Amino acid sequence: MYYLGIDLGGTHIACGIVNNEGEIISVCETPTKPERSYQEVIADMGQSSLSAIKKAGLTADDIAAIGIGIPGIADNTTGRVIFCTNLFWQDVPLKDELSKFIDKPLYIENDATVAGFAESVAGVSKGSKSSVFLTIGTGLGGAIIINGKPWTGAHGVASELGHLTLEVDGIPCTCGKDGCVERYCSATALIRMGRETCIAHPDCALSKAVGGDVKLLNAKIIIDLAKDGDALALKIFHRYTRYLALTINTIISFIDPELVVLGGGVSHAGEFLVNAIKEKLPHYLMFKTMPYPDVLIAKLGNQAGIIGAAMLGKIVYEEGKFDYAH
Amino acid sequence: MYYLGIDLGGTHIACGIVNNEGEIISVCETPTKPERSYQEVIADMGQSSLSAIKKAGLTADDIAAIGIGIPGIADNTTGRVIFCTNLFWQDVPLKDELSKFIDKPLYIENDATVAGFAESVAGVSKGSKSSVFLTIGTGLGGAIIINGKPWTGAHGVASELGHLTLEVDGIPCTCGKDGCVERYCSATALIRMGRETCIAHPDCALSKAVGGDVKLLNAKIIIDLAKDGDALALKIFHRYTRYLALTINTIISFIDPELVVLGGGVSHAGEFLVNAIKEKLPHYLMFKTMPYPDVLIAKLGNQAGIIGAAMLGKIVYEEGKFDYAH
Repeated sequence: MYYLGIDLGGTHIACGIVNNEGEIISVCETPTKPERSYQEVIADMGQSSLSAIKKAGLTADDIAAIGIGIPGIADNTTGRVIFCTNLFWQDVPLKDELSKFIDKPLYIENDATVAGFAESVAGVSKGSKSSVFLTIGTGLGGAIIINGKPWTGAHGVASELGHLTLEVDGIPCTCGKDGCVERYCSATALIRMGRETCIAHPDCALSKAVGGDVKLLNAKIIIDLAKDGDALALKIFHRYTRYLALTINTIISFIDPELVVLGGGVSHAGEFLVNAIKEKLPHYLMFKTMPYPDVLIAKLGNQAGIIGAAMLGKIVYEEGKFDYAH
Repeated sequence: MYYLGIDLGGTHIACGIVNNEGEIISVCETPTKPERSYQEVIADMGQSSLSAIKKAGLTADDIAAIGIGIPGIADNTTGRVIFCTNLFWQDVPLKDELSKFIDKPLYIENDATVAGFAESVAGVSKGSKSSVFLTIGTGLGGAIIINGKPWTGAHGVASELGHLTLEVDGIPCTCGKDGCVERYCSATALIRMGRETCIAHPDCALSKAVGGDVKLLNAKIIIDLAKDGDALALKIFHRYTRYLALTINTIISFIDPELVVLGGGVSHAGEFLVNAIKEKLPHYLMFKTMPYPDVLIAKLGNQAGIIGAAMLGKIVYEEGKFDYAH
């Protein structure tokens, strides 16, 4: 059998057909245009899905189940999206609408969970029983894989690793709390640290790299300068990776997974990032003589959304129930 | 069948026989006297176990398996205690030594995990599929129950909830890190806050309650004065329970369990403690319109050690393997 995996993003919808081994057979993409009604968005999702099936040389009969990754939260008992901020969706009957095009067992999950699950099925953490995935971009999302399955919590809101408190009364967060991990470990946090440095040192290499316009600063510029050995950029990078090491240590003290996997834009820094974290991690470990998780860079990139969603569909199909994690 | 549960503490060893329903049938206790050799301690443990079996009107044939809760970490593939600081044990062959007295499938687990598991089998969280247990005393320990079983991590060091970072570069912790949860949420932390208040306000009710000797201050004195409405004691109590609410919020953002259970000395404050936490919790929630875990006080007290250990033995017996969590 084959599985349909849909990656519903704020700008693009990617629909892909995936085989039992987690390999993508075909993909069709379409722009999301979230300013439209949800009916129109889901109709495009349905049409793209049918195109992907055709492109793979298959028919709907070959599809066992569907998984959808969304930048939000869903209730799988009703097949409704509870909310999805980027798409302005609230209480949207995604399953019912999509079933007008293709009607199969369907599972909807948060996109970070989907990406982390994809890595554990077909990516860098393949073969591991437990892993924690951090996607480090504008925000910071997470996924927890336990016994080979995503753990999404008793109320569907687990693995919001960007919103653990790292600093009581720390930097105010978009979520309404203060001092969340996201405010210290996201790309946004790294850029903020870079901007602070540019303001304090207007003649620094960072400031020159953006022609004095700190608004142009991004994570790649800071990391590239740190790689080149620029002292101030390295200082920022070590401050930033210290926060990441503290957060990974909290993950170890809490869950102690086999592996920690880093994805998202910042993870493109690759070994340079991993080495800076691994250098700091042992200092923070509670049990210094015990083995601890390796830290790895995710490898599926944009494919993770389709693969993870499809493989979640596979679990639901094989187990015949929606609360796969329980 | 029946199960033998052993609670190995720094001062006492309690051995109990437990039935399939998690009810204690008999108990025998003996002092630990940890200054002795481990062989002597384990011999007393074996003798007490045999006495408990006899007291229950049973023989060794009626015992299906043994569970032992220790204030430390063990390797169940070898049956050895890796370390157990209070008992000065390092790499102790607990299974081999105990088998000289009673030889059954045996599982050794950290005492906080054992207590949390007991609550989920026969205590306040009975019937729940997922829960997180915090034991709040001199230190702060934790247990994570997922799908009805303790999750102890890929390397056996999970659920060290006292050592999540709550404050970067915060109060130095006994573990070597700074700003751990234990430094803000344990009884020790509450007492520290009380002492600081006594020093700043030598005439306060707290200071009077201990005749000016801050060394006599304990958690109960502070909580009792707060219950009586003393303004300064209440201020400390609200500062302290705010840290607890932040930590419970981190637990929700991470694992999102069905229930959060509080045990240990501080939990004797009961509803007064729970209400102060519940009052603060909604403010910190990431998803304010979603349901979230209730916070409950543990109910098994000292019996948790025996019941939880015995019920872990039961899992190992029924599943026929030691890596029950995987």
